[in-house]
Amino acid sequence: MATIKDIANKLGIAVSTVSKGLNGASDISDEMRQLVLDTAVEMGYASKKMKASGSRKVCIFIENMDYENIEQFGYEIIVGFKLAAARRHWDVNVVPTNLNMQTAEKFDSYMLKNGYSGAFLLGFTLHDDWVQQLNKTSVPTVLLDNYIERNNHIGYVGTDNYEGIDLAVSHLYSLGHKKIAFLNGSKNSMVSEQRQQSFITSMEKHGLEVNEDLIEYGYYVPDCAKDYVPGFVKHGATAIMCASDLIATGVITELHKLGLKVPEDVSVIGFDDLPIASQLTPSLTTIRQDRTDLGKSAFLLLDGLVHNVTISKLLLRAKFIQRESTGPCKN
Amino acid sequence: MATIKDIANKLGIAVSTVSKGLNGASDISDEMRQLVLDTAVEMGYASKKMKASGSRKVCIFIENMDYENIEQFGYEIIVGFKLAAARRHWDVNVVPTNLNMQTAEKFDSYMLKNGYSGAFLLGFTLHDDWVQQLNKTSVPTVLLDNYIERNNHIGYVGTDNYEGIDLAVSHLYSLGHKKIAFLNGSKNSMVSEQRQQSFITSMEKHGLEVNEDLIEYGYYVPDCAKDYVPGFVKHGATAIMCASDLIATGVITELHKLGLKVPEDVSVIGFDDLPIASQLTPSLTTIRQDRTDLGKSAFLLLDGLVHNVTISKLLLRAKFIQRESTGPCKN
Repeated sequence: MATIKDIANKLGIAVSTVSKGLNGASDISDEMRQLVLDTAVEMGYASKKMKASGSRKVCIFIENMDYENIEQFGYEIIVGFKLAAARRHWDVNVVPTNLNMQTAEKFDSYMLKNGYSGAFLLGFTLHDDWVQQLNKTSVPTVLLDNYIERNNHIGYVGTDNYEGIDLAVSHLYSLGHKKIAFLNGSKNSMVSEQRQQSFITSMEKHGLEVNEDLIEYGYYVPDCAKDYVPGFVKHGATAIMCASDLIATGVITELHKLGLKVPEDVSVIGFDDLPIASQLTPSLTTIRQDRTDLGKSAFLLLDGLVHNVTISKLLLRAKFIQRESTGPCKN
Repeated sequence: MATIKDIANKLGIAVSTVSKGLNGASDISDEMRQLVLDTAVEMGYASKKMKASGSRKVCIFIENMDYENIEQFGYEIIVGFKLAAARRHWDVNVVPTNLNMQTAEKFDSYMLKNGYSGAFLLGFTLHDDWVQQLNKTSVPTVLLDNYIERNNHIGYVGTDNYEGIDLAVSHLYSLGHKKIAFLNGSKNSMVSEQRQQSFITSMEKHGLEVNEDLIEYGYYVPDCAKDYVPGFVKHGATAIMCASDLIATGVITELHKLGLKVPEDVSVIGFDDLPIASQLTPSLTTIRQDRTDLGKSAFLLLDGLVHNVTISKLLLRAKFIQRESTGPCKN
């Protein structure tokens, strides 16, 4: 493993300058600091802070996901992670990120500069610069709902989407529904693709016809419902499975606008079990993702990676929560 | 949750008799003891021992798998599990099982009688009585290489078979091999089915023809090679991917019998990276399952289940180990 001296030799500068660069001292230029960091990363340098087993410091990076209050998806994930980390006396920083920040600095350099031993990335997509850099990183990193092939330093944590969607389809099937529509979240998301495939597999498993007019990709926001609900109704859907509770709130609003009652005319199921699910009228039948446990499991996984236990995937059970938005099919 | 008194009331017997039944006392009949245990399980009784958070006792049940010395597949898995358990001061018993034992007593009754808080099952198949009973158990249980749907108390630990097989196919592809045969392990095993599907998917991903004459299920023993290797050779295979190192040893022996050299005439890849892989002539290129980490991860998972973190699947990375049994394709 490279030492500070190796980096100094390679760049032909003083050891003290390298040390300043690594520690973010202000009396060297930004360019020199960046050059030192990038060279250190390239040479596989890891600081004492990163390797320290006593009190480690790790970082949760978050984007495209709300997390400030308990109503929001990210909140309990972060709580769960912090709870598990506290038990091992690890420090956790939460850092909101954006594309600019990712363009400005490479992931590995950012981690090295700040002495982080590992990271948990929430809400990132495969298009993010930092996610693309994860193919080659040696910094232990856990991704929520995204998977990186062939890098032993990266793990994926999430909920078992197949079982979740299958629980929902089974429930609707048991209520007599045959024409079940699926309003998915955004395309180009691994989770959406898994849910799409799971829906088709589960419909076939139950001997139900997979009708392309009843399957659509939308977005993970309520507003997308207005573009698809009228079409689903026109094609005879008696139940609508939604890829998130937020989408389901939009679907219920649209059904009401069309003069249809939930669940008397159309049953609706969500996914996530956010606090809003129990507050809606009618309250929402949904598939629960246990977010506190997702956070705890992300920590377990990161702890494993830091100790060279190369966990690739850790999936939690999805849980079926029956409420009032689903009922027997009358058609 | 049921108490000893509830059980006594239900059976119309004295509390002291229930207590004797639960503690395995010898001054009541076998039938009465069994009745007490089965009733306790049915009523959801959990003993103080099972719930104790101080010093828990868990059990590794093992069958159809050798584990007595380091050459064998189960050895390091058990070591890894025990290492992780010791760090949390949990006691671990290793209990070899067989079909008779499973017929004689139900899984839940066995666990209750012995005060185990959880179990790790190695080498079981979906046909085992105890595995079939796992659909309904509430005893935290981890299975190696088997998955139980819809029970939040059960977890599955294993190696990412898709990535493992894909690493092997990629390697052979990069050496110019196109006619790649696959000698799988036993049918009716979840792992064999995953590897079969992974092989087909990976071949297609690499633009290679999937030839049914070159794909066979065998058994996880060297001896099965003699039934399939001549056919593979006849159909022009230049490389043989094996579902285990033991199968690969049989394949190499058969190739030698046919007057073919490894890797000059036919390349061979194993799976597992048992100690024997590096001792063979030629030494065996293989896909490594890190067995110590499988054991450690099984404990992590069980610890999660005991604390109601409902982990469903935990998969480890498969690792490509290049040795001498693979070489460039000359055809």
